[in-house]
Amino acid sequence: MIEHAAVDALVAERLERWTEELVQLCRFASEAGDDDALRGAADWTAERLAALGATVDVLEVPGAPPLVVGEIGAGERTLTLVQHYDVQPAVPLERWTDPPYEPAIREGRLYARGATDNKGEFLPRLWAVEAWLDAIGDLPCRLRFLVEGEEESGSEHLDALLDRRPVLREADGALIEGGGLDPRGRPQIVGGGRGIVVLELVVRTIAYDAHSSLAVLLPNAAVRLVQALATLWTADGLPAIAGLDAGIRAPTPSQLAVVDAIPPSILDDIRAESGVERFIGDRDGIDALRALTFAPTLNVQGLWSGFTGPGDKTIVPAEAHARLDIRIVPDQTPDEIVTALRTHLERAGFGDVEVAAEEGERAWWTPPDHPIVEAAVAVSEAVTGLEAQRMVSMPGTVPMYQVCGAHRVPATSLGTARDDCHAHAPDENIRIEDLATATRIAARFFQAFAAAPEMPPVPD
Amino acid sequence: MIEHAAVDALVAERLERWTEELVQLCRFASEAGDDDALRGAADWTAERLAALGATVDVLEVPGAPPLVVGEIGAGERTLTLVQHYDVQPAVPLERWTDPPYEPAIREGRLYARGATDNKGEFLPRLWAVEAWLDAIGDLPCRLRFLVEGEEESGSEHLDALLDRRPVLREADGALIEGGGLDPRGRPQIVGGGRGIVVLELVVRTIAYDAHSSLAVLLPNAAVRLVQALATLWTADGLPAIAGLDAGIRAPTPSQLAVVDAIPPSILDDIRAESGVERFIGDRDGIDALRALTFAPTLNVQGLWSGFTGPGDKTIVPAEAHARLDIRIVPDQTPDEIVTALRTHLERAGFGDVEVAAEEGERAWWTPPDHPIVEAAVAVSEAVTGLEAQRMVSMPGTVPMYQVCGAHRVPATSLGTARDDCHAHAPDENIRIEDLATATRIAARFFQAFAAAPEMPPVPD
Repeated sequence: MIEHAAVDALVAERLERWTEELVQLCRFASEAGDDDALRGAADWTAERLAALGATVDVLEVPGAPPLVVGEIGAGERTLTLVQHYDVQPAVPLERWTDPPYEPAIREGRLYARGATDNKGEFLPRLWAVEAWLDAIGDLPCRLRFLVEGEEESGSEHLDALLDRRPVLREADGALIEGGGLDPRGRPQIVGGGRGIVVLELVVRTIAYDAHSSLAVLLPNAAVRLVQALATLWTADGLPAIAGLDAGIRAPTPSQLAVVDAIPPSILDDIRAESGVERFIGDRDGIDALRALTFAPTLNVQGLWSGFTGPGDKTIVPAEAHARLDIRIVPDQTPDEIVTALRTHLERAGFGDVEVAAEEGERAWWTPPDHPIVEAAVAVSEAVTGLEAQRMVSMPGTVPMYQVCGAHRVPATSLGTARDDCHAHAPDENIRIEDLATATRIAARFFQAFAAAPEMPPVPD
Repeated sequence: MIEHAAVDALVAERLERWTEELVQLCRFASEAGDDDALRGAADWTAERLAALGATVDVLEVPGAPPLVVGEIGAGERTLTLVQHYDVQPAVPLERWTDPPYEPAIREGRLYARGATDNKGEFLPRLWAVEAWLDAIGDLPCRLRFLVEGEEESGSEHLDALLDRRPVLREADGALIEGGGLDPRGRPQIVGGGRGIVVLELVVRTIAYDAHSSLAVLLPNAAVRLVQALATLWTADGLPAIAGLDAGIRAPTPSQLAVVDAIPPSILDDIRAESGVERFIGDRDGIDALRALTFAPTLNVQGLWSGFTGPGDKTIVPAEAHARLDIRIVPDQTPDEIVTALRTHLERAGFGDVEVAAEEGERAWWTPPDHPIVEAAVAVSEAVTGLEAQRMVSMPGTVPMYQVCGAHRVPATSLGTARDDCHAHAPDENIRIEDLATATRIAARFFQAFAAAPEMPPVPD
């Protein structure tokens, strides 16, 4: 307890300086495709880890942003911290109160793309190391930061990067990129994340956009795509693809118990935040909670065809595009899902719709009663003073399978992200006080992880 | 005949200088929304008409590009030439061989947005006046150029502009903005154009774009729009809205005779140009030809929702948009069509889909055996040496109802636009030789129009 008090005092003392570090890192517009900004954020990260005293290695493969590896500390156990320096695209820019890459502090919050996801989650963990080193001394375990630059676009090259140094996959435990607090401030501790498949459907009907007077004869690519897409969901918005559930491992009793214990009030929070009265398929209560964990999604993230600017342009579009993301669960594989979609389209008479599989990641779940989850629950409750809520999986995706799957490394989450932090949305933000809380939780976790009597691999 | 030879000689002599004028006019990127370019094109047009010797009047109403009026000549009859200086948007720019507003001459063609529609159709008519004046002398009738700047976006303010000088609607005949040659070079003479309704369907499901992990619960605006749109067409791509045919005046025997006499080879031309093997609904032969004239269209010209950039962004889109254009025929009104669409959506359970009516124009057809059409056929055949093909209507839309409807002014077409001129598409172009041909046809038409024994209004 004395040790924690020393850490906490140092956190309070350095919070302003650290917040300025987060402002610096958030100034990099490190979106996929902006190579300069990605390189800038990677360099900044490598330098910051080196300044901490870590041994830094920057791994590269062609066509990918670098993977920054920072290792520090010693001990029997190794904890891998899986972070990223890239961010979601900031569009639509007009919905931001301040420009996304000109961080602004208002009413105790820092607003910027990446303020939460993941720059504002990565740095508190780094600050926790600094606080531990300066307030206490030697770290209680070996820590390995893996900070990648492709997380928001599917970690396509993460496996290849890790293959450069396969020992990076060996560890006793791992921390998922961040972690959450519910709207009441209670920690939400998850045992993993869902997988994802992102793919594009493309329809081409005519040689080039034609004058729309010919719509009386020519097949419209947008109409054809719309008709194909309409077969993918029920009238109530639920997925209607046979095979979307293929490969799902049945929930264990302990997983069901954890999911069923989630307070249904989180559904009210989602309703309030999104402004909807009812969910698709009238999902509610325990069905909705179970769906958030165990049900694959089938989502259109973008749709475009023809002329989409202001005014109008009287054309029959020659091409139409839809980008889908499909969240998957253990033990589904991206390949199986793509096959199910192709089979569905062919059977529905839309074999002409091209399915361009872009990327896929598998899910990785640690049992909700594993000691690493217990440790995360204990330290999060100690710092916040509120009872933690366990979750089998976050609803979203994190590249844990690539890092943990080979050696069945257990993983959990820690942190202070909230729904109103607007990750992936305009006006992303983080409460500055939450940065301090996240730092204090992380420092305690290093000790709890090192001190736990057992830290076994995830059972097969 | 001697007169024509003098005109033709002058056309040949001035073609190079005139082509340079077209290059100048095509340098204005006079797309809707580009006020500077629209103003530039309007000013250039007014100056050119004044240089011709016309009395020029520039009419304005708030929120619209000006209507340039140029009147020249005297005689018993007045012919109105309905032209425009605005152009379709040039996107997608990457499909152009040369930039659309940097006119390029290659292999006897001028490439630029507007090279055909309508700058390359308007100027030959103006050059015909110049040629007549310089080669022969007094014009055989009174000519009135109405050159508007909103044609490509629906001529929304044309009625208001004409209301500023209602006498502008009084005339004995009118020329539609241009006219066509089929792929074999035969003139296609039309008696009018179809009307159009352009509207936007908008779906909003949630307060803002949400993280796509919530797709398991939140209604996706793109999915909802797709489901609504899918009800609008049959599986084969034909419109499926009750009421889309409301108000259609039954074809007359003479209209049917003209349509049925169109050589079905034009369907092969459309197939070849668009690269399709079969038309929607398996339309072919006389059915396809009749549909091109008498059937309303229901076309998606653009579709957009969520993240449409490169890469991906894992969101549930809050909004989705589709812009439709619907070609209509006599005596349909835009209001009736919008009502039919709203009723369809409500009955299909999509009352939540917003229908934003943007603009509408009625069709205007002159009987195919009217003297003004006869005159156009005669002069086009004389210049090209090929038999003309009459058409009841062009498949597209022109703002003739606004100009001609009140006084039932008969109208026809004249010109040298071809399918491979790619009007409304990338690499729009015109053959320079065709500019000369169009000029010669127009000069002959002025005389034929003035000399016809009768020029009655269109029967009610």
